[in-house]
Amino acid sequence: MEAVGSLLCVGLDPELDRIPARFKGEASPLFAFNRWIIEQTHPYVAAYKPNMAFYEVRGAQGFKELELTMKYLRDEHPEIPTICDAKRGDIGNSNRGYAASIFDAMGFDAVTLHPYLGKEALAPFLERRDKACIILCRTSNPGAGEFQDLQSGGRPLWETVAMRVSTEWNAAGNCMLVVGATYPVEMRRIRAIAPAIPFLVPGVGAQGGDVAAVVTAGLDAQGKGLLISSSRAIIFSNAPSAAARDMRDGINAARKAAHAAR
Amino acid sequence: MEAVGSLLCVGLDPELDRIPARFKGEASPLFAFNRWIIEQTHPYVAAYKPNMAFYEVRGAQGFKELELTMKYLRDEHPEIPTICDAKRGDIGNSNRGYAASIFDAMGFDAVTLHPYLGKEALAPFLERRDKACIILCRTSNPGAGEFQDLQSGGRPLWETVAMRVSTEWNAAGNCMLVVGATYPVEMRRIRAIAPAIPFLVPGVGAQGGDVAAVVTAGLDAQGKGLLISSSRAIIFSNAPSAAARDMRDGINAARKAAHAAR
Repeated sequence: MEAVGSLLCVGLDPELDRIPARFKGEASPLFAFNRWIIEQTHPYVAAYKPNMAFYEVRGAQGFKELELTMKYLRDEHPEIPTICDAKRGDIGNSNRGYAASIFDAMGFDAVTLHPYLGKEALAPFLERRDKACIILCRTSNPGAGEFQDLQSGGRPLWETVAMRVSTEWNAAGNCMLVVGATYPVEMRRIRAIAPAIPFLVPGVGAQGGDVAAVVTAGLDAQGKGLLISSSRAIIFSNAPSAAARDMRDGINAARKAAHAAR
Repeated sequence: MEAVGSLLCVGLDPELDRIPARFKGEASPLFAFNRWIIEQTHPYVAAYKPNMAFYEVRGAQGFKELELTMKYLRDEHPEIPTICDAKRGDIGNSNRGYAASIFDAMGFDAVTLHPYLGKEALAPFLERRDKACIILCRTSNPGAGEFQDLQSGGRPLWETVAMRVSTEWNAAGNCMLVVGATYPVEMRRIRAIAPAIPFLVPGVGAQGGDVAAVVTAGLDAQGKGLLISSSRAIIFSNAPSAAARDMRDGINAARKAAHAAR
């Protein structure tokens, strides 16, 4: 984010139905599309984030196209961090397999994780000082509150998750939180609880989150600490390069205004 | 469970380091091992449950071996239900991809799911009346209580999950709950809250859960409603066939004793 002056994370979530026709005839259409998106957008992004669901839907072939995408990113743009949006969370024995696959075999720099099984189960991820663990805190979906809003000890579950991650899980300094752009009130509260934890922010664009509200609520004391993710609005636009540049610039303008207003 | 007189679910969790040497030279060693395990154990099991982590750790090749395993099960033993132990849980748009991969492309009958994003996000799974959704409630790991034990409205989170799933999520009659064998006290309480929901019970064997305690705590009013999962203790035993038969018989003996004692 510092090096490129951008808080933008681009979600590499290709859907075969929606990618341009010229890629559909390729042997690895999802990879061919991703490679084009990466070449169009890389000057403007701080991170790339493939969501595993869009690869697993094509089975072993899709998994291979994710591997090809990661190899391409490592070879051509090794300076750009990569996030595996897998939302994993199993017992320790199984998490070791996921960590080996995501961090070591594919070479991702970070992974998204469910908190429900607790810190002990996530140890195979949290122990990796060289990798980032991005814990679901307040998700962007309309029904996020069903369990996340449950009050316990005077605070909702998402606050407790933010506190635990900030004070107890982050011993290696490698934790982040997922905080949806669609919940700026909650985001402001999480920033107060976890002043030094970076947020991965999904939900702008297709899901309806507002960039100005996000930067106002979520920037840390240094005007940093946000990685704002957009997928469909960029990768399926007619001009992904311009869409990424405009989004980077829009975020930076909102960031400057929000920081100046403090 | 009715048809075969067994509550045993065998976890197909092959680890390349631990499978017999004769399989390691095969082109698809995990599949070759699974096929052998299936042929050794199928008369004694009510379900098979591959955990995705043990396939993803081998990348696209591992994913292909899971697909081969599922094709084999569908072709040779279509009457045995299959559970994808994937512990998925994303927003709706991504969950549609996971549901298409797990239910439709691979043909699984059921999937394990995280509750953290709520019912709304899980709709692509819950709407499938032809498939089962197995929601994490009380997990088997030592640190399960970190969030699951948080009290809200006079009850821990795992109780609230059990109530919501039992009363609101189960409109299609296709929900189950994951309740760890290592927590029989909690299991008894969940059975009281959700009298008609079947439980998938991990944690016997290598994790230390006790079969007698499980059946005493978890059987429903008809002496049913439990699917008890074992993986390492069966698939890595010297005689998987005998291990599965003995486990089935041990569960049935405990079940008979527990039901008679009521």
